[in-house]
Amino acid sequence: MTDFAATRRAFHLPSGITYLDGNSLGPMPVAAADRVARMMADEWSDMLIAGWNKAGWYVQPRRVGDRIARLIGAGPGEVVMGDTLSIKVFQALSAALALRPGRRAILSDSGNFPSDLYVAEGLARAVGAELRVVAPEDVEAAITPDLAVLMLTEVDYRTGRRHDMAALTARAHDAGALTLWDLAHSAGAVDVDLTGADADFAVGCTYKYLNGGPGAPAFIWTHPRHADAAQPILQGWMGHDAPFAFEGGYRPAAGIERMRVGTPPVIALTALDAALDVWDGVAMPDLRARSVELTQAFIAGVEAECPEVTLNSPRDPALRGSQVSFRHPQGHAVMQALIAAGVVGDFRAPDVLRFGFAPLYNGNDDVNRAVGTLARILRDGSWDAEKFHHKAAVT
Amino acid sequence: MTDFAATRRAFHLPSGITYLDGNSLGPMPVAAADRVARMMADEWSDMLIAGWNKAGWYVQPRRVGDRIARLIGAGPGEVVMGDTLSIKVFQALSAALALRPGRRAILSDSGNFPSDLYVAEGLARAVGAELRVVAPEDVEAAITPDLAVLMLTEVDYRTGRRHDMAALTARAHDAGALTLWDLAHSAGAVDVDLTGADADFAVGCTYKYLNGGPGAPAFIWTHPRHADAAQPILQGWMGHDAPFAFEGGYRPAAGIERMRVGTPPVIALTALDAALDVWDGVAMPDLRARSVELTQAFIAGVEAECPEVTLNSPRDPALRGSQVSFRHPQGHAVMQALIAAGVVGDFRAPDVLRFGFAPLYNGNDDVNRAVGTLARILRDGSWDAEKFHHKAAVT
Repeated sequence: MTDFAATRRAFHLPSGITYLDGNSLGPMPVAAADRVARMMADEWSDMLIAGWNKAGWYVQPRRVGDRIARLIGAGPGEVVMGDTLSIKVFQALSAALALRPGRRAILSDSGNFPSDLYVAEGLARAVGAELRVVAPEDVEAAITPDLAVLMLTEVDYRTGRRHDMAALTARAHDAGALTLWDLAHSAGAVDVDLTGADADFAVGCTYKYLNGGPGAPAFIWTHPRHADAAQPILQGWMGHDAPFAFEGGYRPAAGIERMRVGTPPVIALTALDAALDVWDGVAMPDLRARSVELTQAFIAGVEAECPEVTLNSPRDPALRGSQVSFRHPQGHAVMQALIAAGVVGDFRAPDVLRFGFAPLYNGNDDVNRAVGTLARILRDGSWDAEKFHHKAAVT
Repeated sequence: MTDFAATRRAFHLPSGITYLDGNSLGPMPVAAADRVARMMADEWSDMLIAGWNKAGWYVQPRRVGDRIARLIGAGPGEVVMGDTLSIKVFQALSAALALRPGRRAILSDSGNFPSDLYVAEGLARAVGAELRVVAPEDVEAAITPDLAVLMLTEVDYRTGRRHDMAALTARAHDAGALTLWDLAHSAGAVDVDLTGADADFAVGCTYKYLNGGPGAPAFIWTHPRHADAAQPILQGWMGHDAPFAFEGGYRPAAGIERMRVGTPPVIALTALDAALDVWDGVAMPDLRARSVELTQAFIAGVEAECPEVTLNSPRDPALRGSQVSFRHPQGHAVMQALIAAGVVGDFRAPDVLRFGFAPLYNGNDDVNRAVGTLARILRDGSWDAEKFHHKAAVT
């Protein structure tokens, strides 16, 4: 049984704050500061260039990737770290397209994170592909026999709605298409099973539920059946079969290594590596169970005490990730008041109050405080500065 | 007058080491460890998500870019940080190609860093362009009227040979082509003047002479005349005109901001920012003069004392960056012996001994020790383990 009291102690959490924005930026793991300080002093400073071999910097993208693999239902040697999520979307999408010659259609949905759509749009324009964007509920019907790649973010960044990865992948495969899953709001938040879902490509970031720090490196996974065939457009020396032979022409490395591009970000990977220590004792089914418990309790509490807001997430936890959102016509002002009162969620236009629940450090106290604070703010009108000050002046 | 004794004190340099490999990885600036520690504790840990605005993380790529701009003859607001050099080559090359519709030829040379050629090859295959690679000395003659982009690394990573940026840019412009300069071995090493040379695009890394740490972020520069017209293929949300409006379609930001892609690597940029403090008191003409002095002294010393090696760099400092290389048939073994003796250069196949001189922390003592140690090793044969042990046994 995972000890969530112990995982909570592994984070620096500012006192007086209930932090429900780990779906945007995870808090700092206690071990990260010391690990980075040691890497800088013992490796960069003392080993200098020899650190690439002696300190294992060169193999760090694969070693750290292996630690993430376990959390997303992938095998060792199947995940590699580097760049940003947007770059990795480009890398995976270009490789997937190239594996379906003769097909040019990419299907995504309007619930996808905009950057993924921008990246797909740029790639499509460059290589003469076509990006089709439908509503999340229309994805299945839009999987047509001319489809090359189905590209979806599993968990919607606004609503928390979770796609059925296995079912949609099966439908895409039936149509002869490949799938690319963005796990930005899934990795470390839900029980992802890439292998079980028989997905083709996956990418994700590590600064949300994996707590790697602001701008932490992204990851990319290729199903082993494609790993030696995938030919990404971004051909960098670290993805070459022999990077230090400095050959004139590109020969992709075997397996997932070819998805590397440039020199790996060692300092950032070191912070992330420390953050992944916290996961060592975590069983993903426990994490998922705890996430469902927290989000269900939050929904029940808010619906009981805050009639002013409307649920913007699926009610059925099976259709939801680890975040919950509510709508309020003055959502921005309400969220500002909540944050001022020490409950940190975030706001997404036009009217969405978004709350992420990270079982590693969020517990029942956070749920209760968030519900109680939101209810109080909505009741006393303190989110409405003008009205509130007027009221305060006359009473 | 730049105080190079003071800049040297700004670095952690392991005692007993003469470090001449800063052209591969610069040493750690003393201030970097504390700066990163403070960023982690005061910003990530305490501000959490609010750090994006409160701590200025969001504008960091431009703020740090401005500091680099001064070192490469660019103006404020013209440089932005992010990703790796290979990604930035792709970004700039794709934008340059798009500015020359109807032309498909990219010209580079065999002295370019292989990763740049791999990236160009991948892009060319994807968009139907053609990559032409000639010998460095044939570049000028290969600038033909059908050329779209001339893509060169200013300073050759093996020989230190420096291209004439202004002259080749003028020739390319006469032919109607644009230029893309890779400053990996130039930024912080020589007196780069992008504006004076009238270049079109430039990219570079920051872990060499700029001492940003292993895998530090890259930079990209666009001449202001192209900044609002350039349309890169890599369209990420941070390059969007309104990233936080989460619009469905991509609208590039004004100016250099459109060259941003994903979430910026805040921890790594913080280390780099600390490293750039060292440059505040450095006048680039002083740096260049000191670099020429050191490299000339090294060449003179080695040629006087080491007849076993052959100069592999241009003798004329005007044709050379801040590194010098020599050839020796057993170069690998010789470099191993040098490193074991505390003089750290590096080896590039098949027979190149490479030495980088960074005026910020290398001085005359380093030159003298490197020359003396190389001469001793070559004279006593200690680089040849087998022969040396035999000799030691019989004398």
